[in-house]
Formats: sequence, structure tokens, C-alpha cells
Amino acid sequence: MAKKYVYLFNEGNGKMKELLGGKGANLAEMTNLGMPVPQGFTISTEACTRYYVDNETIAPEIEEEIQSYINQMEKINAKTFGDVDNPLLVSVRSGARASMPGMMDTILNLGLNDEVVVGLAKLTNNDRFAYDSYRRFIQMFSDVVMDVPKHSFEHFIDEIKIKKGVKYDSELDADDMKELVKVFKKYFKEQKGFDFPADAKIQLMEAIKAVFRSWNNPRAIVYRRMNDIPGSWGTAVNVQAMVFGNMGETSGTGVAFTRNPATGEKKLYGEFLMNAQGEDVVAGIRTPQTIDQLKQVMPDAYNQFVEIANTLEKHYKDMQDMEFTIENKKLYMLQTRNGKRTAAAALKIAVDLVEEGMINEKEALLKVDPKQLDALLHPQFEPAALKAAKVAGKGLNASPGAACGKVYFTAEDACAAVNNRKEKAILVRLETSPEDIEGMHASEGILTVRGGNTSHAAVVARGMGTCCVCGCGDIEMHDKYFMLHGERINEGDYISLDGSTGNIYIGIIPTIEAAITGDFEKFMGWADKYRNLKIRTNADTPYDAAKAVEFGAEGIGLTRTEHMFFEPDRIPAIREMIVSKTVEQRKAALDKLLPMQRGDFEGIFKAMGERPVTIRFLDPPLHEFLPTKDEDIIALAKEMNMTKDELKTIIESLHEINPMMGHRGCRLAVSYPEIAEMQTRAVIEAAINVNKETGLNIVPEIMIPLICDLGEFKFVKNIVVKTADAIIKKAGSDLKYLVGTMIEIPRAALLADEIAGEAEFFSFGTNDLTQMTYGLSRDDAGRILEDYFAAKIFEADPTARLDQSGVGKLIKMAVDLGKQARPDIKLGICGEHGGDPSSIEFCHNAGLAYVSCSPFRVPIARLAAAQAAITGMDGK
Amino acid sequence: MAKKYVYLFNEGNGKMKELLGGKGANLAEMTNLGMPVPQGFTISTEACTRYYVDNETIAPEIEEEIQSYINQMEKINAKTFGDVDNPLLVSVRSGARASMPGMMDTILNLGLNDEVVVGLAKLTNNDRFAYDSYRRFIQMFSDVVMDVPKHSFEHFIDEIKIKKGVKYDSELDADDMKELVKVFKKYFKEQKGFDFPADAKIQLMEAIKAVFRSWNNPRAIVYRRMNDIPGSWGTAVNVQAMVFGNMGETSGTGVAFTRNPATGEKKLYGEFLMNAQGEDVVAGIRTPQTIDQLKQVMPDAYNQFVEIANTLEKHYKDMQDMEFTIENKKLYMLQTRNGKRTAAAALKIAVDLVEEGMINEKEALLKVDPKQLDALLHPQFEPAALKAAKVAGKGLNASPGAACGKVYFTAEDACAAVNNRKEKAILVRLETSPEDIEGMHASEGILTVRGGNTSHAAVVARGMGTCCVCGCGDIEMHDKYFMLHGERINEGDYISLDGSTGNIYIGIIPTIEAAITGDFEKFMGWADKYRNLKIRTNADTPYDAAKAVEFGAEGIGLTRTEHMFFEPDRIPAIREMIVSKTVEQRKAALDKLLPMQRGDFEGIFKAMGERPVTIRFLDPPLHEFLPTKDEDIIALAKEMNMTKDELKTIIESLHEINPMMGHRGCRLAVSYPEIAEMQTRAVIEAAINVNKETGLNIVPEIMIPLICDLGEFKFVKNIVVKTADAIIKKAGSDLKYLVGTMIEIPRAALLADEIAGEAEFFSFGTNDLTQMTYGLSRDDAGRILEDYFAAKIFEADPTARLDQSGVGKLIKMAVDLGKQARPDIKLGICGEHGGDPSSIEFCHNAGLAYVSCSPFRVPIARLAAAQAAITGMDGK
Repeated sequence: MAKKYVYLFNEGNGKMKELLGGKGANLAEMTNLGMPVPQGFTISTEACTRYYVDNETIAPEIEEEIQSYINQMEKINAKTFGDVDNPLLVSVRSGARASMPGMMDTILNLGLNDEVVVGLAKLTNNDRFAYDSYRRFIQMFSDVVMDVPKHSFEHFIDEIKIKKGVKYDSELDADDMKELVKVFKKYFKEQKGFDFPADAKIQLMEAIKAVFRSWNNPRAIVYRRMNDIPGSWGTAVNVQAMVFGNMGETSGTGVAFTRNPATGEKKLYGEFLMNAQGEDVVAGIRTPQTIDQLKQVMPDAYNQFVEIANTLEKHYKDMQDMEFTIENKKLYMLQTRNGKRTAAAALKIAVDLVEEGMINEKEALLKVDPKQLDALLHPQFEPAALKAAKVAGKGLNASPGAACGKVYFTAEDACAAVNNRKEKAILVRLETSPEDIEGMHASEGILTVRGGNTSHAAVVARGMGTCCVCGCGDIEMHDKYFMLHGERINEGDYISLDGSTGNIYIGIIPTIEAAITGDFEKFMGWADKYRNLKIRTNADTPYDAAKAVEFGAEGIGLTRTEHMFFEPDRIPAIREMIVSKTVEQRKAALDKLLPMQRGDFEGIFKAMGERPVTIRFLDPPLHEFLPTKDEDIIALAKEMNMTKDELKTIIESLHEINPMMGHRGCRLAVSYPEIAEMQTRAVIEAAINVNKETGLNIVPEIMIPLICDLGEFKFVKNIVVKTADAIIKKAGSDLKYLVGTMIEIPRAALLADEIAGEAEFFSFGTNDLTQMTYGLSRDDAGRILEDYFAAKIFEADPTARLDQSGVGKLIKMAVDLGKQARPDIKLGICGEHGGDPSSIEFCHNAGLAYVSCSPFRVPIARLAAAQAAITGMDGK
Repeated sequence: MAKKYVYLFNEGNGKMKELLGGKGANLAEMTNLGMPVPQGFTISTEACTRYYVDNETIAPEIEEEIQSYINQMEKINAKTFGDVDNPLLVSVRSGARASMPGMMDTILNLGLNDEVVVGLAKLTNNDRFAYDSYRRFIQMFSDVVMDVPKHSFEHFIDEIKIKKGVKYDSELDADDMKELVKVFKKYFKEQKGFDFPADAKIQLMEAIKAVFRSWNNPRAIVYRRMNDIPGSWGTAVNVQAMVFGNMGETSGTGVAFTRNPATGEKKLYGEFLMNAQGEDVVAGIRTPQTIDQLKQVMPDAYNQFVEIANTLEKHYKDMQDMEFTIENKKLYMLQTRNGKRTAAAALKIAVDLVEEGMINEKEALLKVDPKQLDALLHPQFEPAALKAAKVAGKGLNASPGAACGKVYFTAEDACAAVNNRKEKAILVRLETSPEDIEGMHASEGILTVRGGNTSHAAVVARGMGTCCVCGCGDIEMHDKYFMLHGERINEGDYISLDGSTGNIYIGIIPTIEAAITGDFEKFMGWADKYRNLKIRTNADTPYDAAKAVEFGAEGIGLTRTEHMFFEPDRIPAIREMIVSKTVEQRKAALDKLLPMQRGDFEGIFKAMGERPVTIRFLDPPLHEFLPTKDEDIIALAKEMNMTKDELKTIIESLHEINPMMGHRGCRLAVSYPEIAEMQTRAVIEAAINVNKETGLNIVPEIMIPLICDLGEFKFVKNIVVKTADAIIKKAGSDLKYLVGTMIEIPRAALLADEIAGEAEFFSFGTNDLTQMTYGLSRDDAGRILEDYFAAKIFEADPTARLDQSGVGKLIKMAVDLGKQARPDIKLGICGEHGGDPSSIEFCHNAGLAYVSCSPFRVPIARLAAAQAAITGMDGK
């Protein structure tokens, strides 16, 4: 039997979202529930996929099937396409599996032509309505199907208004509309070289193709990328009989939610317009009335609607977002779906639905998108102000939240503005480096020209919870100003950044502070009850550690010891260490660092109590620590008893062509074992001290980075064990500690069985692992990814969302090999992916024990882990 | 039964090299053949491995076993350790599975003490001999076993000579030797705090441990790395009864080869000294006699030796290198082994042995080390001059051959010196870039401070066949001079480079030209007969292509199209292309490049005939092509109608932090499809033109580099196919072509099944694959690898020798996945490993169809492929 691509509404049901899209499935479900739905049919998402397989054509057998459904639809509605006396008019709408509001195209009033419009006028006894509908259809169809932009028709309307001396469209009469239809059709023919299609069936086939095409329009692609919707899903197309809310004062149209989508309050919420079509509500020319007022205007329709709304909410067990039309007092349901809502509303609704007994805790947990929680933890723009703002440019959405402030181009200038002049600053840099940390901390937001989602700016900003847009390659940097798409922004000018979307705005957009609502604790408690994955945090200071514990972190998965070295009182010692010419000089410099580092670890251990703490040894290339400014070089040379030239030679000799694959990570410990000795000493002494002081039982986890070979792991582990055991013995302590490794180099994953023979834990460093597996530098990825998104090669940024097919294959391989060699090996992930919901689901399925993410992502990770566990249990 | 670690010579045989080492196995074999061998025992290589496992101690059970073998040895020789009347004296020598001449330690005359020396004097009736032997033993034992350097004893000898007013050691008498023994023992006690050990068994155990330790001395480690000998093999220890060539004028000692090791001539070749011990021959104080003269001096011993030599050569079916001693007219064989030989000799001996019917062709092929062929293809130093030269520094042996010339620090200066002043130049650079090509071509040799075996300098030099030493991090560069270990070398000073060892010499060492001998063709013909792997070459010009065909290349595995762009007449156009602001500008620049590139391809196709030619599309990051000098920037800005600042901004915007993982390879074609279009056009038009002109049937292979994802391959392939098919159709041609990809990014290997669905061939780009799999930048590897070799973490440079466990695992995975998806997929390798024998063996075993290497490595690859096939057939 041939595959079925088309379904009447009464052939489907609410569970068929994959095939019929959300809109189609819900129209079928409402039909089955006996609700008043204008009847029609849905062309499945599989037809869309076929359309693309067949090089953007509709196969003859599918076209035939559609034609046969048109016939059935005509019968059901007792109307006929092109019939002047009783014409069928339809709407053609997209409807994907996941809701993508406003992203794809819609055509109303399809079926009109010069004859049918006459019939419609007679039938409705309303010439103006009929011809207005017709000219709207011409405009919409031309725009969506024929590439003749809607706005190119507008000046004809303006001309006729000038001629008549009126101001509003509503002041035009039926004759004006007739005139416009003529003018529009003439203009269309001029543009396209052929007549506007009069045959309803041709109109319909072209409209269907246009909806399929709109699946791949740029805004739909961007929306999918931001919402993790695969391009392979495709959209369904719904062909539905038109009903008219604009047939006079007993008609109308509206939208409503069963609960308040902004607050979650349990109360019907919505608005309607009498004598109007859907697009008038959206256009905002007339002010709609609230849904309550419908009770007065048309009590029967209102009561029927309330009953339907209640039924739908109970049926779907979720807040519904509905569209309806009243045609001559008769109510029609055009759509229902689970409504979009703010984060605060999402929490309240989820908790309320449980308390109302409508759903259980697990179902409630699945109703909140983990990413939404960001909005509770970071400032947001005032919605009205945002709506009015124009996007000036776009970068990567590297760290969420909204920010507004004056532009500064150096960390020093940003600090000065904030500390001395109490300004709000936005730090704009080509790229950030560890030297910028203080300025980044002082700023409201950070904007960089280069770098991807795991660049320094992005990683540090997320750790701080500061808004960051990075990798905006369209910015041209100049001295004390930058150019963005032809606009010049000077130092001190205001800009606004949306770190959740990557949007850049020129000027001020007011922000509102983050606010955690009362339902948060209860809801997160449920999440903790159902998840298996432990959630740790990436934290480098006692402050970050304490913050993360507040957010629910159960340990530290990654302490980057190098971040501590950038403090102004420490950087001289680390620099001395790096430029030392002898082991003795180097040891002397390390001796200065030891007490500082030990103090940091003591602080972190105390902040974390007995929660596990993984400390990674020095990782970045050493030249990152070295001065670049002449004055700093001179100062350091003096300190080291060197000439400036000698020091410059040393600094140059440390320059690397590809520092990301250079002398860093454990390679530093191989070249300078004394660094690993000092760091071991700091960790072990700190643990012994804190255990003694507090009576806690701290078991530090020492993590060796950038391992690619068993031999190098053994080499460094040997240094650690020798040093640690001597200290423990001397202190008469019984301290336990673990030595493990990052798996962040493909070779380590490939040979994980060998390495697990020696390593007591693995932590997947998915930032580097993704870079190496793709051969794609995170610092240089911004521009490349944009081209790849534009060419539709990538749908997601692999530095933000774990690549499950490639990098994931390596991880699974390493998990299996690691467990073979050491069944009780501790497995976790500490890359940036540790805070990404879809990546967390992968980690759950891959059998990891924990994920570690920046403090502000801990709540997201807790919820995502719970969802992964729940969907896993349900065998989904 | 306990494991056996010790073997009497008569318990072993010649096949037991893995267990007994080469020397031990051959001593056993000679014993079995009834030859006069001083008897003793061999401690196995497994005992050495145990020694390291047991933290550098000899386990009690092995010590016991050794003791019991000492007893048996005493019985066999009818002599006893420490017996004053009939003392057993022994030599203790290392002997690994593979010959490592001079790399490890030897101790002679062990067993002497204050009592035994008296007996030895009496027994030999030679006081001076006995005490001379004793003082030599003290020196040697102190040096090798006790860390008291040999030379620290020398001044005592000088003092006694001054006191006596004599010049030579030989002028010292027995009393002087007795005095020296006393002084040496006193000095020893001062140094060590205990007496020189008198107990022969203690001496022996300490000596054995010292030999085990010497397996890991630095020179042994370097030798193993250069000769691909695994550190895990360990060395055996041979304990053999001493015989004395220095017992008077009826005694002597010598070494001889069954054929001439320099020329291969079939004639006994060697030398001997009467009244001498082995070390005297080596020390070169007295001039030895040729082996022929032994016939006159001691005809019986001579005849017996000739018979033994003939027997041994026939027995081992190879040229033998033998050591012998005559003690009181009686001949003893101390060692035999397959002799080291020059490349020319190796070829002649292999061919002669076949012609003499002693071995077959396959056996002959296994007798020549493929790497030796380098010496026939590149200049070498004059051996005598080299022996006298002092190594001033060391880098990586990046491209073989010897070179001597005046130092220049820029490509321009080197060109000027060579072209205008007819000097020989050595180009010394921090690192080279494509702009240096002309200067590299003009120079005799290239020396760089940074970069590994696959750095630009190394790759290009190998392609040219030019000597190159790279990554010598000890060099400090200054203006017009450099410092190396305290020595200053100015511009214009002479240095000499050995690209085969990485050694750097200050001053002139004369070189001799490369010469291919007459046996080469015949021998390589045999290789071609037995190999399965096809050998292609990496060639970018018609000249290289023709050269490679001369060397036996069967196709081109890699044409790097970008190398063509650096010619002075082309670089302006490519620069224009890169800095273009619009597609139109870019297309205009590409139009200028098209005829040049098409012309190159025509030349290459003609040079290769119908041999397959794989052309890789543009690969390197674009900024490599951009000018860095102000004058060039100004010129280009003028050409492009830009201001200098505008152009500088563009150049800066192309800067990348990790260019190796940046905007390069197929990523360029995604951003600028017009580049791929132009390159497709050039390839296809060239092939059509040449086919038309010559009647050849050329089937070009277009290779897309740096693929990490199926989507990007499809994207670029689509451009290629559209462009190519249109050209072919328009030309009315029936040209066939293939589109395939490099597998050089780990993700491509992991997802090779997906990619093989679209790609018609895979070529493993093992340079990049190794970099990414290790997370190690080839340009920055030099310094890191040195530290890794020093720390004994790596034994081989993975950029030179394919890492079979990690990178190899990825390759095997990709081969399997690729064949699953496309059973007839063409598989090859075009990384630098394509010219490395052990990597070629891996490629053979992994089931690849061809390897591709630089032209000068083609003969090596042919031989290595034959050896892989032959050892594969034998099931080894």
C-alpha cells in the first residue's frame, strides 16, 4: 500500500504530533472531542521531508492524494472551491512538531478570485468585506508564495488614501477595495510576467510548497538552532476551512490562555476584537478587549468558550493557548496548544497543577524547560522596551542575561568607570585574556569580536553569571570606538546586550533584576528527588564555591588553579616562575606561590565541607601569564635581575603558533616537575590543615589535565604520590586522596583502558575534546560557525551543545574502556556542556556519575538531570 | 617450575635473540657449531625487564640462579673465581635483541683483586700484564659500576709519567702498575667511602646491575629512538671467561668482516693487533695490521679463522662482523653478528648473495634497512672529517642528508648569496613560512629554532630533498647572529648540518655527493615484484612529479594546490582574492588565478601520464598568504583601491589564535564557494585539454581537505559536481573524475561510514590526524618532545613515526567503517608517515591501497612496502 501523506482532521489525534505537527494533531484532537473546529486536512511532516528529498518538488502521487482530500473536504464543508454561490475558502498554515510561533508562513482566504469574490460579497451581503479579503489575499499570497514583498503593495493604498484625502485603511470603502484589487493584480503581472493565479487548486498547491519552503527560511533556522529543533523534522501543512470574524458586529476573533502566561495565575487570560480577522489582533491597530468582556458582548459564545477551555486544560493537563473565531455568533476553535510562559509562570503552573492533583511531580518536572531557569537567575530587559528596540548586530549567546552600560575598551577603563565614577560598564574587547578578569567582574556585560562559546570571555562570564555576547565578527575595532554595520559607537556610549540571544542594541534598554520565586525551592526539591546524576560545579574561589552550594551544587568538578594566579598580588610570582632560567630560581618563585595557593584551597575546602573537590593542576600555556606591556616587562626584568631584552627573548621563545595544542596541561608538569610538586603540596597541606581545624574528612581529588598517553600520566602521578605521601607521613595524618585525569584529548579517549589502569577517575573535558575532535579552535570558531549555520551544514554549535555522534562516540568508547579496566572508576564531565540540558541527557545515558557546570547553571543541570532520569524511566 | 633467567652458552641457540640478545644467541650458536668460544652464560633480557619492574633491583631468586651458573661456569672452564692459583676472570657485556654498538657498557678482567692478581702474574709469568689488567679493571669498574669517572684516574698516570720522565703508558713498568693499583684503590675509597670490592661475586653482581642500568643511559635512549628499538625489550648480559690477547707476542686480538662493509666487495676485511686487548684496537694508539697480514704472522690461526668466517657467513647467510682473540697461538671467537654496512654495500651484498645462490630475492629484500637508501639519495659528510667534528647542538632530524654552507637569516639573503656570489648557504630561521620557499630552494640546508617533524620547514625540505634540522630550541636568535650553547655564530659563518641525525656543527665539514649504484635498479625491481601497496608521491609541480616518477612513483597522492600560489607572479592575485570585500572582487581575482592553476595541472597531468593524480583543494589558513612587510601591504592596498589602514584591518581580522584549527581546508570552500568553483574548473579543464591534446585518459581525483562532518563534504562536493558536470557537458567530453576526502580530523574517522556514503576515496592525512589526536601542534612540538624523550615518556616522535596504538586505532576504525559503507572505496595515506618504514608496514596491515610520500622517499617506501608484504606472507 502506498504511504499515506494526508489526513483529515477526524483521521488524526493528539498523539500524532510527529506526523501531523502540533497544530494538526491538536485540531484532530479537538475534532475528536466534538469541539467546533472548521474542518480540513493536514499534510504530514513526512511529505515535507519528501519535498526536500525530491529536490523541492511535490511528488505526483502526493499531489494526487492532496487533490482527493480537497474533494473530501469540499464534501464535509458542503462548499466547493471556485463555486461562486457557495465557495470554499481555506487557510493554509504551517505546523511543526515543536511550536515555532511566527517563524513560518500562513495564508488566509485562499480560494478567492474575480468570480468567487462576487459570490462571497453576495453571501455575506458585504462588498467591502469581500474585496478587502481579496486584496489582503493577493498581498499575502504574492508575498509568501511569489516573492513579491507585501510592503511593495502598500504605496498603492497610500496613493488611494491621498486621492480620497483619508488617513486610515478603515476609511476606504468597497469601491476603493475593488480598485485596489485591480491595481494589485496589475502590479503582480508586471512583476511576475503572468497573471495572478485564479484557480483555487493551483493557489493551494503553490501555497503548500511555500509553507514547505518556509521551513528553511533564515529565521526558522535560527529559531531551531536556539531551541534544539532538528532540521530533519520538517513541518506539516494544515488546510482548514475559513471562518470569518470580520463578517460584522456579531463576529469576532481572539486568543486566550487558561492561565496567566506571565504570572501563572489560574484565571482565563486573553483578548478579542469584534469584526476582525486574526491579523488585525496582531497588527494592534485597534485595541482589543479583555476576554472577560466577551461575557457581556456575547455571553453564549463566552460560556461555550470557557467550558471548552476548561475541558482542554484538563484534557492536556497543561495551560492552553487557544485561538478562536466567532462567525455570526457561532464559536469556532482554530487552535489549541500548550502555552508558552515565563519562567516564573512555568514554575507556578507546574507546582499548582501538582497541587490541584492534575499531574504528578514527574510530569511537573517535564513541563519546565531547564533553560528557562536562566531568566530567574539573570537580569532581563523590560519587555516593552525590548520590543521597541532595534537589533544592531548579533554575536554568540555566550552567557545569559541582559545588560546595559557605557562602552569601555580596556579592563582598566571599565574598572575606573565602575569604581570611581559609579557608572555601569560594558567591556568591549577583541578577545579577553586572564588579565582582563577584574574588568570583566566590574562590568555589566562583555562583548567580544572573536571567540566561540568556550572562549575565555564566555567561560569566565558564565562562571561569574555575567551577560556575555562573543564572537561578533561584524565589529571593526578602532582606537576608542568601534564600527558595527556602519554605526560608530564611541567609548562612553551606551549599548545593551542580550546574552541569551546574542543580540546587540545601541542605546539604553532598561533591565529588571533577577528574582527567584517561591515555587523554586519546592520544584528543585522534586528535581533532586528524581535525578541520578550528581551535579557539581566549576569553581575557582571560595566565593564561587559558596555561591554554587547555594544553587545546589554537590561538589566541585573543576577548580582551575591557574585562575588564582591572575590576582595582582600573585601574578609577579607566577611570572618569576615562568621566566626562571634555573630550577632553583623556579623553586624560589614557587615557594612564594605555595602559601597563597594553599590558602585558596583551604578556603574552598571549608566552603564545600565534605563535598568532593576536584582540583586541576596548572593547565594554560605559560605565556598567558606574561606581561605584554613594556612597563610590566621592565618591572619584571628588574625583579629577575635581567635586562629587558633578555626577558623579551624569553617571552618570545614562549610564543606558540597553536597554543591550544602546545606546551600546556600535564606537559608543563613534565617539563617542570617542581610545579606539580608545589601544587600537590598546596592541596595536601590545605586538606590536612582543614581536617585538623574543622574535624572534617576531606578527600581531595587531584586532576591531571591534557593527558594523551599513559606514560605521561604515570610520570605526573608519580610526582604527586611521592610528594603527597611524604607530606602525609610527616604530618602523621591519614589523609586519603585520589589522582585522576581529564579525558580531553582524543587519544586519551581511544586508550582509556590503559589510562584507567592508573587513573582513579576520569573527568571529560568536553571543551578541549570537542575542539580536537572537530579540529576547530574555540577561539576562532565564531566566524566559521556563522558560515556553517548559513550554509545549513551545522544546526547547533558543538561547543555549546555536545556533539553526540562524533564526540559522543569517543566519550562512550572511553566510558566502556575505562570501566573495563577499573569497574569502580568515577566518571564525570567538567566541560561547558555540563550545563547544557541536551548534553546532560547524553551524560545520563552514557552512565556518567556527575556533571559539573558553572555555578549559575547548577539549577538548570539539576532539572535537566531529573528530566533525563524521568524520560529514561519511561523508556522514552 | 620457576622461570629460567640464565642460560649457559650451550643451552641457547642463534634463534633465541629475543631472550638472549644478539650477542648471547650468536655465542650460543657458535658454541653449538663447535667453534672455539670462551664459555660462560647469558642472563636473559627478561631478567632486565624484571630488574626494572622490581624498582632496579635483582630479585633474590634470580641472584641465586646466577650464583648457580657461576658454579657451572667455573666447572666448565676448570677455573675458580678468586682462586689464586687458577683464577676465573670474566668479561661482562651487554647484548640487546638489536645491535646497539657502543651504546651500553662492558667490563673486562672482572674477578681480579689483590690476591688473584699475584696468581695471574705467576700463571702468565708477566707481572706487568697482570697489574696493568688490574688497574684497567679498577678504572673500568669504578666508571661503569660506581659512578667514579674513568678520566678522574688519568691524572695519577700523568703524575707517575712525569715523575719517571716518560711519555707513553707503554713505558711504565710492572712496579709503576703496582703503584697505580694502590693509588687508584686509595682514590676510590676517598670518593666512595668504602673499599674497592675484592669479592669476585660481588663485583659480578654489581657489574650485571650496571649493564642493566646502562640500557637506559641517555645515549642508548637516543640510539633506540633513532632506530625504532622499543625500550621494553631490555638487554641481556653476557658473562664470558676472559681470554687474553695481551699475554705476549703469540697473542693478539682483532675484528673482521666477511665482506667489505663500505663497498660490499667479497673479501675478508679487518684488522688485528698483536699483544693487545680489545680496547687497544679501539683506542687507536698503535696502528693495527690488516687481517691479510695475520696469514704471515700466525698462519694456523689465520687459516682456522678464515674457515670459521666462511662457515659463519654461510650459516647466517649474511655478511658477518666478528671479534676474535688469540691467546698463546690459540684462536678464540668472542662475537659474531650480521655486520653493519653502508647503503651501497648493503645493496651489493644483498644482490651478490642472491647471485651466489645463498639467499632468495625475498630474503635479500629483508636485508636492507629502507632508511639506509636515504644515503644513496642525499649528500653525506666525508666520514673522516665527520669523525673529527664536534657536535655543537642538536635539533630534530627533519630531512636527511648533509649540508655545509654560510649562515643566512632571511630567504632573500640566502638567495642573494647563492645567486649573486655563488656561495653555499644554510638558511637559519626561527621557523619558515611559505614566503621563504625560494630561499629554502637555494640553500644547501635549513635550520630552524621551532617546529617539529611536520612543520613547514620539514615538509618542504623533504619534498625538495634538502637537508633540514628543525626545532633546535637551544638556539637564541639575535640580529644577524645566533647563540648556541654559548657559541656565537654570525651571518656568513660556516656551519654544517646533518639532517639524518639532527646534529649541528660549527665550521666546515666537507660533503660527498649522493650516488646511486648499479645494484639499485635490480634491487628495487625485486621490491616492486613483491609489494602490494602502491607508492604514490606528494608533488606540487610538474618538476616534482617527474622526479618522483624517476624514483618509481605510481601516482600522485597529494598535490597541494596552495604551494603553487606562492610564486612571485601569483601571490598578488591570491592576495587580492583574500582581501576582497565582495564576491565580485573575489571572482575577479580568482579569474586571474584560473589560467595559472589550470596550466600547472596540465603540466602535472602530462608528467604523470595516466597514473592517478589526487589534487587537494586549498587548505592553509588564508593569512599565510598575506603580506607582513609594510611595503608589500602598501602595494597590495594600492592594487585593491584601499587605504593601508583598511587593508591592515582586514589582515588583522584574519589573524587566528590557533590557525591549525581555524579557517582552513574545506571551511574556506564553505565561506567562499567561488574558490572551490575556480579550482574545480582548473582541474577539469586541464584534464579535458590534456586528454584532447595527448589522447591520454586522465581521471582526476579531487580531494576535499579537513572534513569533519558529512554535511560539509556534501556541501563542497555539490559545488564540485555542479561545476565539473557543466564544463564536461559544454566541452562535449566524457571525462570521468572522482571526489573524495582527507581523513585528518578525528571526527571524520569516527564517522567514516557516513562520509564514505558520499566520498569515493579516503586519504588519511596523518599529519593533522596525529596533531588533533594528540592535541599537539606540529609547529610547537619540538621543545615538548625533547622533554618527553628526556622523561622517557615517548620513545618515538609521533609526527615522524605513526602512533599505531592511538592514531592507528582511529585509522583502523575509519578503514572498517569506510569499507562497510562503500566496499570498493579507495584508501590511501598522504601524511608524512607515508615515507616511514614502520608506518608503511602498518598501512599494509591496515589494508590501505597506497601510501604517498615525498619524491625522495619513494624508493624507501617501495622497499618498506615489499618488506611488509614479505613478512606478512611469512605470517610473522
